[in-house]
Amino acid sequence: MTGCDDFRVRQVTAVDTHDAAQLLHDFNQEFGESTPPVTTLARRLGDLIDGGDTIVLLAGEGPEGVAVVRHRRALWSEGREAYLAELYVRPARRGHGIGRALMKAVLTECRRLRADTVEIGVDEPDVAARHLYESLGFSNRVRGTDGPVMFVYELDLRSDE
Amino acid sequence: MTGCDDFRVRQVTAVDTHDAAQLLHDFNQEFGESTPPVTTLARRLGDLIDGGDTIVLLAGEGPEGVAVVRHRRALWSEGREAYLAELYVRPARRGHGIGRALMKAVLTECRRLRADTVEIGVDEPDVAARHLYESLGFSNRVRGTDGPVMFVYELDLRSDE
Repeated sequence: MTGCDDFRVRQVTAVDTHDAAQLLHDFNQEFGESTPPVTTLARRLGDLIDGGDTIVLLAGEGPEGVAVVRHRRALWSEGREAYLAELYVRPARRGHGIGRALMKAVLTECRRLRADTVEIGVDEPDVAARHLYESLGFSNRVRGTDGPVMFVYELDLRSDE
Repeated sequence: MTGCDDFRVRQVTAVDTHDAAQLLHDFNQEFGESTPPVTTLARRLGDLIDGGDTIVLLAGEGPEGVAVVRHRRALWSEGREAYLAELYVRPARRGHGIGRALMKAVLTECRRLRADTVEIGVDEPDVAARHLYESLGFSNRVRGTDGPVMFVYELDLRSDE
């Protein structure tokens, strides 16, 4: 893939998922979430990439950032619908445009897939991420900028077993 | 499938999607959204069901309500992640528990699929739906009920072509 801004962004193949798994593992550890071992995550990422519905992008030397996109056929159109499942940049490297470079590559890939829409779930206090997404045209309001906000509702089925 | 509450809920097969397509078509028309013709929607629903990542449920005689669930392998667990893409009950039949019957059947199917999580995108003013989801344990706050709210951010890639 071509570079975005000053950071090289590259797409991960199913047999080269270790660096992406390490970043995702560190992501969850930073936010106090449980995470599988890196080797487990690496194998699962490989399975998802092989399954054809997942794109994983890495940015920077190191690498220093990762994005995971899931996609599937849409219901309301002939195209696909994409979902940014994860976006992470190492804390020491934030504020240098790595997240923006990743997001530009994400949108390039989504267009290539003929995705009609891209969705992201974002926590309210995550202001830096929200500003990044808004600067790229994303909105958390119905029909763009003038409607009411849209919430993510979630149920964890494991907690009621 | 077994009935839920007083309403029979049944799962749609790939060759019997017309009624579900009609309801989804009426759904979008009610809210002033563009919608493909019913025959197009019916064919697409059949393709999605055949693809193995989509469950469509109908409730009531008529039928009077429809739910569409998409699902895929999860990243953070060995299970699956489910997404309630659509839930609709005909206006004249609302307030009788059809939506609740559909949602109970949705959760039964999600557990059967070994989904670990179920997500829904909900507009803030859609109070009846939010109450329904909350009564079933869904939350729009991080880690259940005590965290900040979670927003859906969306970008329509068709609008910038």
